[in-house]
Amino acid sequence: MERLPGFRDFYPEPLPTPDVWSADARTYLFDTWRATARRYGFREYDGPPLESLELFTAKSGAEIVGQLYNFTDKGERAVALRPEMTPTLARMIAAHERNYKKPIKWFAIPQLFRYERQQKGRLREHFQLNCDLLGETDPAADAEIVALLIDCLRGLRLTSEDFVIRLSSRNAWQEFFQRGTRNAERGTGEYEFYQVIDKLEREDAAVSEQKLQALGFSLVQVKDFIAAAKPTEELQNILDNLAARGLADFVKIDYNVIRGLAYYTGPVFEAFDKKGEFRAIAGGGRYDNLVKLVSGGKVNLPALGFGMGDVVLLELLKVRGLLPKFDGGVEVVVVVEDETLRADSLKLVQQLRESGAVVEYSLTPAKPDKQFKRALELKAAFTAKLERSTGGALAVKFKNLQTREETVLAFAALTRQTVCGLLAK
Amino acid sequence: MERLPGFRDFYPEPLPTPDVWSADARTYLFDTWRATARRYGFREYDGPPLESLELFTAKSGAEIVGQLYNFTDKGERAVALRPEMTPTLARMIAAHERNYKKPIKWFAIPQLFRYERQQKGRLREHFQLNCDLLGETDPAADAEIVALLIDCLRGLRLTSEDFVIRLSSRNAWQEFFQRGTRNAERGTGEYEFYQVIDKLEREDAAVSEQKLQALGFSLVQVKDFIAAAKPTEELQNILDNLAARGLADFVKIDYNVIRGLAYYTGPVFEAFDKKGEFRAIAGGGRYDNLVKLVSGGKVNLPALGFGMGDVVLLELLKVRGLLPKFDGGVEVVVVVEDETLRADSLKLVQQLRESGAVVEYSLTPAKPDKQFKRALELKAAFTAKLERSTGGALAVKFKNLQTREETVLAFAALTRQTVCGLLAK
Repeated sequence: MERLPGFRDFYPEPLPTPDVWSADARTYLFDTWRATARRYGFREYDGPPLESLELFTAKSGAEIVGQLYNFTDKGERAVALRPEMTPTLARMIAAHERNYKKPIKWFAIPQLFRYERQQKGRLREHFQLNCDLLGETDPAADAEIVALLIDCLRGLRLTSEDFVIRLSSRNAWQEFFQRGTRNAERGTGEYEFYQVIDKLEREDAAVSEQKLQALGFSLVQVKDFIAAAKPTEELQNILDNLAARGLADFVKIDYNVIRGLAYYTGPVFEAFDKKGEFRAIAGGGRYDNLVKLVSGGKVNLPALGFGMGDVVLLELLKVRGLLPKFDGGVEVVVVVEDETLRADSLKLVQQLRESGAVVEYSLTPAKPDKQFKRALELKAAFTAKLERSTGGALAVKFKNLQTREETVLAFAALTRQTVCGLLAK
Repeated sequence: MERLPGFRDFYPEPLPTPDVWSADARTYLFDTWRATARRYGFREYDGPPLESLELFTAKSGAEIVGQLYNFTDKGERAVALRPEMTPTLARMIAAHERNYKKPIKWFAIPQLFRYERQQKGRLREHFQLNCDLLGETDPAADAEIVALLIDCLRGLRLTSEDFVIRLSSRNAWQEFFQRGTRNAERGTGEYEFYQVIDKLEREDAAVSEQKLQALGFSLVQVKDFIAAAKPTEELQNILDNLAARGLADFVKIDYNVIRGLAYYTGPVFEAFDKKGEFRAIAGGGRYDNLVKLVSGGKVNLPALGFGMGDVVLLELLKVRGLLPKFDGGVEVVVVVEDETLRADSLKLVQQLRESGAVVEYSLTPAKPDKQFKRALELKAAFTAKLERSTGGALAVKFKNLQTREETVLAFAALTRQTVCGLLAK
């Protein structure tokens, strides 16, 4: 039986074939994301992978349904596997925001889903780090979020040689749009205009020109605005804040970025690899009206955040040779040479594990050299072997497989402290 | 907008209302599970939350569909949100087992789903630790799995006063069944018989008696067999192995346990709270034929494992008062007293975070006593404040909020080492 198209299996390393995904690399990614978000004072939350369909259509309109993994459940409800986390966050915040001090700084690592019929070979799920900050309008909040994004990537050993954050502004584009539109037409065509800008780098120039003309603009006009790259006061604030942190090298103004989703309201940004070989690594921005929209007007909180997927990022780390080598981290292999000592060896295994050590041993009798070879394969730090002294007392002989140094300790006197000392934990 | 019935939101502590779930308690549970499984040399894997419906019906028959969260996807495939992890594991192992040394020791923490129409208020999803060992028939493997189960619960500070593993055997029941059945009837009614035993403790005695009589047995006969609790040689091996590890107090023979699922073949077990207030905390056993079945006969590997859900366990830990107090773990709150030092304070925030510290600060200007009060609320270990000396150089004043001890360091001389030393990291 096969897995469904577009879904992934995650295997422990070493990987059986290059086309399966590494569970260890995923753990490395999640651990780095979590540790970085926590250092920034962000707290973890989670919601259901399945939500009412209307949670996702309310803010984006019905046209999004074509890309959703939606279906009707056994209770005749229209539901969808979540395509993004922000609506769930807005729902959760709207329900209980009074109980949390502002600003609220939360993160989650949800699995997200989509289902587009035509795209063969395209993934239908991915994991995404989501970091959001709610209850603060000051650009200091935008800078905090962008700094966190930068440090999530730096934590994975990516440098300013590898990536850059392209910072832009929906406000700046909105002003541009309104300046160029006759009063009578204000408000119409705005979202369509953003869509043209969002596709500018991927679409044929003639097509963009045609669409812009239809909206009363010209490509030259748009290109000039992008080329000037004049930061708004808000964006300058964010740049200054990041410079104070020593992060100026990681960010630049780039009005090519505008973000596709309808709900953004202020500064927006995307992270790209500098060689331009990959799609965006991450993206986000302000969405000051979304919580109000999702809560039906009950809760009004300014908000901003970003999402960073696992697929592009893992591919980038792989290509750049930045993924660590993964093994099981076995610290001690207990070798049973004398089968009359098996019960005592099990006691030793248990004691070492209770001291915090990662311990392996052969479940059944095996030749000592085979057990030793297995310890080398597992890249274990130590072997440990019970030996009976002439007096009858048991001793544990630890062998450091790197230095070949041996340490013999009385089994009866073995403590958590001696074990931790030996393993330098 | 509301979340779907039977699904959970996980919030950071302190919880807004007692009826929402704690993301921090979930993290604590997952971290403990992961650390324990790793100490036992188990490696993490994962598969898709969505699989072909037939993966789950192949081994259990079509009657299971009534309890599945199944639907038809946009590509007209019959699919289901996974109700258990073992079929996915068997599928993954069958695809790539040649590339892994035996025994294979893997774990996963999947979210699992079910949909039963009539049950109001019942959860439709939960998380479950799954630990499985493949490629070993010796009872030493069963003992290793049961020891891991015990240590997962001990890691959560549960003791032999709190829980016990009830160990049983499908083999023993099979022998009992075959002894009591005339030759001509052998093989028929066997699964039905197991179902009666599985329900024995929950069902009315008269109903059980009636069902047993129909199968050619009597309730007295069954009760006598359970009361004798005579371990098979295999079970005795497991008991001896666990006793050698010092875990004898955590396990007892109890033939009331037989496990509901069809695929078990040998020793089976369940973990229960000793006061009998909750449903089973965990359960598992041998399923030596499942990999063969799922792989269509291509791969034949003996296997066993257990599953431990988050719902009953979190409830038990809560009632027994064994959940730790959770906070954000903030280590340093940087206080900005002098707004002319804000840029330098941001540099300090950045440097402390890069040294590994969890750091909070006020994004916007606030009265110093308000910032200090916030540090106390966050239960921060330290405050840090920049001060300009008469010579113009900047100093960092750290204040330990427990001892009120102050440490002043030159900002220019602050290193990762001094930060780690101060925070005792």
